[in-house]
Amino acid sequence: MKSSPHFAGPWLLEQGVHNEEGVVAMGSNFLCANGYLGYRGTFPHWRKESYVACVVEDTWDNADGTWSELSSIPNGLYFRVENAEGKALQTSTAPEAKSFLRLDLEKALLSGSMDFDLPESGRMTCSFTRLANISGIHLLAQRIVLSADTDCSIIAVVGIDTDVWSLNGNHFATLAKAQRATNAGPGIDMRTGQSGIDIALRQALLLNGTKPKEGTNFTIQEGIMLRPFHLDLRAGESVTIDVGVSIYSSRDLPTPQEEAEEDAKQFLEQGFDAIREEHEACWKKIWERYTVSVDSDDDAWGILNFNTYHNVIATPAHSDHLPIGARGLSCQAYQGAAFWDQEIFNLPGHLYAQPETARRLLIYRYKTLDGARRKAARLGFEGAFYAWISGDSGDELCPDYFFKDVLTGRKIRNHFNDWQIHISPDIAYAIRSYRIATDDHAFTVGEGAEILFEVARFIASRVVWLPRKGRYEIHQVLGPDEYHENANNNLFTNVQCRFALTEALETLQRLKREQPKRLEELTSLLQLEEQEIALWKDIADKLFIPGIDPTTGLLPQFDGYFDLEDIAPSELAGRLKDSNEYWGWPNGIAFETQVIKQADVIQLFYQYPHLYDKETMRRNYRYYEKRTQHRSSLSPAVHAIVAARLGFADEAYRYFLEAGLIDLYNSKPAISGGTFIGGIHTAACGIARQMAIQGFAGVEAYEGGIRFEPALPEVWKKLSFPFYYHGNRIEVTVGKKQARFEHKGKGKPIQLLLPEKAVELKAGESVEVYL
Amino acid sequence: MKSSPHFAGPWLLEQGVHNEEGVVAMGSNFLCANGYLGYRGTFPHWRKESYVACVVEDTWDNADGTWSELSSIPNGLYFRVENAEGKALQTSTAPEAKSFLRLDLEKALLSGSMDFDLPESGRMTCSFTRLANISGIHLLAQRIVLSADTDCSIIAVVGIDTDVWSLNGNHFATLAKAQRATNAGPGIDMRTGQSGIDIALRQALLLNGTKPKEGTNFTIQEGIMLRPFHLDLRAGESVTIDVGVSIYSSRDLPTPQEEAEEDAKQFLEQGFDAIREEHEACWKKIWERYTVSVDSDDDAWGILNFNTYHNVIATPAHSDHLPIGARGLSCQAYQGAAFWDQEIFNLPGHLYAQPETARRLLIYRYKTLDGARRKAARLGFEGAFYAWISGDSGDELCPDYFFKDVLTGRKIRNHFNDWQIHISPDIAYAIRSYRIATDDHAFTVGEGAEILFEVARFIASRVVWLPRKGRYEIHQVLGPDEYHENANNNLFTNVQCRFALTEALETLQRLKREQPKRLEELTSLLQLEEQEIALWKDIADKLFIPGIDPTTGLLPQFDGYFDLEDIAPSELAGRLKDSNEYWGWPNGIAFETQVIKQADVIQLFYQYPHLYDKETMRRNYRYYEKRTQHRSSLSPAVHAIVAARLGFADEAYRYFLEAGLIDLYNSKPAISGGTFIGGIHTAACGIARQMAIQGFAGVEAYEGGIRFEPALPEVWKKLSFPFYYHGNRIEVTVGKKQARFEHKGKGKPIQLLLPEKAVELKAGESVEVYL
Repeated sequence: MKSSPHFAGPWLLEQGVHNEEGVVAMGSNFLCANGYLGYRGTFPHWRKESYVACVVEDTWDNADGTWSELSSIPNGLYFRVENAEGKALQTSTAPEAKSFLRLDLEKALLSGSMDFDLPESGRMTCSFTRLANISGIHLLAQRIVLSADTDCSIIAVVGIDTDVWSLNGNHFATLAKAQRATNAGPGIDMRTGQSGIDIALRQALLLNGTKPKEGTNFTIQEGIMLRPFHLDLRAGESVTIDVGVSIYSSRDLPTPQEEAEEDAKQFLEQGFDAIREEHEACWKKIWERYTVSVDSDDDAWGILNFNTYHNVIATPAHSDHLPIGARGLSCQAYQGAAFWDQEIFNLPGHLYAQPETARRLLIYRYKTLDGARRKAARLGFEGAFYAWISGDSGDELCPDYFFKDVLTGRKIRNHFNDWQIHISPDIAYAIRSYRIATDDHAFTVGEGAEILFEVARFIASRVVWLPRKGRYEIHQVLGPDEYHENANNNLFTNVQCRFALTEALETLQRLKREQPKRLEELTSLLQLEEQEIALWKDIADKLFIPGIDPTTGLLPQFDGYFDLEDIAPSELAGRLKDSNEYWGWPNGIAFETQVIKQADVIQLFYQYPHLYDKETMRRNYRYYEKRTQHRSSLSPAVHAIVAARLGFADEAYRYFLEAGLIDLYNSKPAISGGTFIGGIHTAACGIARQMAIQGFAGVEAYEGGIRFEPALPEVWKKLSFPFYYHGNRIEVTVGKKQARFEHKGKGKPIQLLLPEKAVELKAGESVEVYL
Repeated sequence: MKSSPHFAGPWLLEQGVHNEEGVVAMGSNFLCANGYLGYRGTFPHWRKESYVACVVEDTWDNADGTWSELSSIPNGLYFRVENAEGKALQTSTAPEAKSFLRLDLEKALLSGSMDFDLPESGRMTCSFTRLANISGIHLLAQRIVLSADTDCSIIAVVGIDTDVWSLNGNHFATLAKAQRATNAGPGIDMRTGQSGIDIALRQALLLNGTKPKEGTNFTIQEGIMLRPFHLDLRAGESVTIDVGVSIYSSRDLPTPQEEAEEDAKQFLEQGFDAIREEHEACWKKIWERYTVSVDSDDDAWGILNFNTYHNVIATPAHSDHLPIGARGLSCQAYQGAAFWDQEIFNLPGHLYAQPETARRLLIYRYKTLDGARRKAARLGFEGAFYAWISGDSGDELCPDYFFKDVLTGRKIRNHFNDWQIHISPDIAYAIRSYRIATDDHAFTVGEGAEILFEVARFIASRVVWLPRKGRYEIHQVLGPDEYHENANNNLFTNVQCRFALTEALETLQRLKREQPKRLEELTSLLQLEEQEIALWKDIADKLFIPGIDPTTGLLPQFDGYFDLEDIAPSELAGRLKDSNEYWGWPNGIAFETQVIKQADVIQLFYQYPHLYDKETMRRNYRYYEKRTQHRSSLSPAVHAIVAARLGFADEAYRYFLEAGLIDLYNSKPAISGGTFIGGIHTAACGIARQMAIQGFAGVEAYEGGIRFEPALPEVWKKLSFPFYYHGNRIEVTVGKKQARFEHKGKGKPIQLLLPEKAVELKAGESVEVYL
């Protein structure tokens, strides 16, 4: 099997013999997760040097005084084979000749296998199947199957490895003392050092389907709690070892130990197969909503499935008080916390498939409103300035010093936390998108309105008025392109702020019209005054939006952008003295040039497809595309969608592949400016479906219905997917010459806006569109 | 003689055997200059490796594409002694046993001497006397006297060394072709490469008082145009060689060659002694106005004389279209251009001695108003944003990249040029000070008013209004402390801006009252509208001036200053990885700490002695003084004055010495962040007299007269100086127990404000004050 990851059909991802360098990416790509816990795609006998990790949601702890991150807990799926004398037969990390991993995306099952020599002669095969249960999210389950081509006596060692890979400090200083055996199996009761969260882990085991008579006693060796089983195997026969690991924290329920104990017992009662079946049934329902089928391009379909899988497993859909981590649960990088990625990249991936999940993500922002209020107040502003890196409370997790200058060893004061203000209007934008897609009135006038008003309030306290220019401006920000900090009038930010203000004002009007009582309640709660609302209106009217240069037809990313040195990213790279250098502000090689990290003006085009005419967008696309380094995983997908809309079909497809393969091709560095940033790029995963839906199929929700303007790649015959709109499922099929929209819901007729005309799509009926 | 510079009485500066390291400082300290040309204090036979240079005012040229600087022209005072076979008897740079330099500050004459071995046996002494003529500023003159203790035959070589020390590129690529002999002597006609300025140099020579019969022919060797004279000396006799070098540029007069020729001829006619006498007579008149006498502390007096000498020779008092260079004419560093130093440090040194010179400096700012307007417009503002580094046109000379990061070799984008906005209100402040000191009505309503209105206009276009805070603020600046760029609401800057606005508004009122026609002319010229003036008033009323923290009693240097790491400068220095590192923004070790480069809040106290009560000033002085590194030469003098006013007498005296000895003790580095910044610190020189007058004597002009509140250092018995106020000379003598003010003018009675009472000082009368 190939040593690089590849698809065997649209639903199977495989990777053969791995190399040492690829283990960070492999562990992430073959991740098993369920929005609550993430277990990296590693072999059972691997240890921390191979980036084995089990990361648990909502267990933030700051162990080193700087970085708050999710805890990486002991590995309850540890397993190895020894000879009869107790010598390990599997080496720890070296590549094995026939080893492979296979991820069944449809069933969310990871299987793997490896062969190794037996002590005397012959070979043993150790296969495993693993799942992070989505029907009961506190359980990891793994089946090990051992078989040999010779009769042999071996020791199968089941363990809990407590010596874990943790990015920023040890979260469980008192771990060893808490190791214990219970009725169900061995376990650990641990407490995070700084945040004081109790976490319980229990390990249950079935040997060939029954609880082994050896009981639950264990010994400890090199930080691993071990249970050895002496086994005699006949040639051609096999032995099955099923392990269930249950995990609870005191953030979930008050008695995590009891809950974990209970789940471990349940595992022993139900057995591996019954749990797997429940898990698969759950995933079947997920895929009914999320599948985007590509006709005649299995790799592309595989890419969509792979990325969607990762978006789903990264999302804590079980909860409305938890964020999507920028690396999901694939590791601790980026602190398991939400960035703007959540609203702008992950959320659209759910919005048109499972709107309820999108809603939960917005409720998370509602529940962290106080954190955003605290941040605004701390920095001298009003309203809600959302955390750039947002964990459970919404307080800012982003440290002042994010990267370091690898040439000098000095810390870099990045201003992601206090100048990247677009995070607040980004959330308003998501609320607007959610309203347009769902017409969820309760949310709009409920939590949505409160967020919108607090974001408007923040913006009003953050803008400045230029008395001689007679306009408001926004200074000292950084936009999506993080290389250029300290910019004035970042086009993206200013437009986002203006829309956030108009959305707040329109919501206010709606409340006035439809729910005066709720408005009264809100104005009283927020102490909103007429004068303040008048100010929002004034700002919305007079906020400076940098215009199109009449001679060049270009839009400036920010004030003075075109005065910067104009150099190609590839040429600029030649100035690096160290490949790990951070390129951006204040002293990186890109800061004083027009080279940008990621889409910024193009991002604006993505979010507002009808703000500028196509010719303007094409001209600007061409200009900025050449100057974009795409260092951010957020960038290529946005380019793919915008390129598709603008008729750059080949380029759109190329960007689709680039975006969809970021993780599979391991194209992003795991370390930048001295900081570990590896793991699954969940934002890129989140938006992958939208490349197909918004980009190639050209299907978008808008204020009055659904817009449709497709541009399929050359090689695609047909694209089909369900599209949820205002509570209705619409089956969409887009072919080369015709398309079909089928209204499977019971709601009102839907306006379908085609390039040349509008048609009505009635409940239970379908419309054929000839292209 | 001591190898370090020292005073032999208050008027003589001496330095014996020099060491290699000290030549940069020695050349600057022993400089001969006259506001037009500066010739460094070096021995006649030295060459560029010993930092020999002749810098000429108003010859800006940009030879390397980055730095515009004054040209360093060929050395017409080159001289060496050879044996009869043409072998040099003086080594080029090595210290000679009996060599010394002696600068007579009173007469502005540099003399020097060196001994060396004769070819066979015996010693020769080569003495010289040099002057940069102040009665005819285009002439350098030097007398060489050779004597020997043995009969000998030698060759005296008079030369023009064209291989010059130039900081940033070669300004005269076509130099060699222009070397020529004329009637008066050899000469060079050169043209600057980028700016196209013609410069003519002529060398005239008298051997024992007569034009030598050898004529004006020369040969060229190693870039030196040489004229050798074979001389036979008897033991005990001496030979005298007088050289006059005349220099003109096309910036002075249209035919520099003819002018230089004429002056060279004149030198031959007049002879060295007659010129020296005129020069000395001029200097006598200067010192009658500038001398501050210290009774019983000759070193302190010497310090005052030394610094005043350098302030005078750095100032182009002959012109009103030229600035004072931050390093005067002592070298090309800081581009021979004016900074805020000129108005805030040099100008006060002239204002109360020779107000006409202060006026010329302000006229220079008037004549460069268009440059300031261009700079404002280029950066998107209105009115006059003066250049941070201002040459002849007032266009910004400060490059974007001033320093470099010595650890990475990368350039640093300092924002001295676009964020250090206090330069404009600083000039308004100087206009205000000039008005208060001189009551020069013509200037105030003339050039002064136009500058003030354009500065007010700039400020109005630069401030921002915070709608929710209901106040104006000033963002993204750096104040005097240059380590902290990108600050919001720098206290010094905000106060300066407010005063600049009120001065503009008051001048406007005055015009309205007294000169409505001039007002009409100005409002028409500047297109001033009522609305704009109303805005100035609104800003003056509502500009945020950071207040005193009620719990600590401290004033913040800028928003968030007290949140920065609090560490002592000495401890912080321990973090340096390279002693040449730049400490400031964006990545220097001081930026994220409270350590400041120079006085900032204390600077404010210096400029506005009555804005805060003394207790507040004392508390803040104590706080900031501990955190000030004094890396800037501007800092200690300000501390001396403020400390004297606040009653910290010992500390004031200590800072007086530190400030006055900056150049003599060579206490500042010649290189910072890879940029040469050596040379005379003219700002420190300029303010030196004010340490005595404003600080220790406590004499200050104010709106209604003269304030007087002395605090003499322990060791000083008496301080006496003339003080020019409203066109009157006041003789001031401050003793320990009494002081005397004598009104030598013919003007109105002057109000003398003592701490406890006010008295009237009438023309021709004197007042005794008992302390």
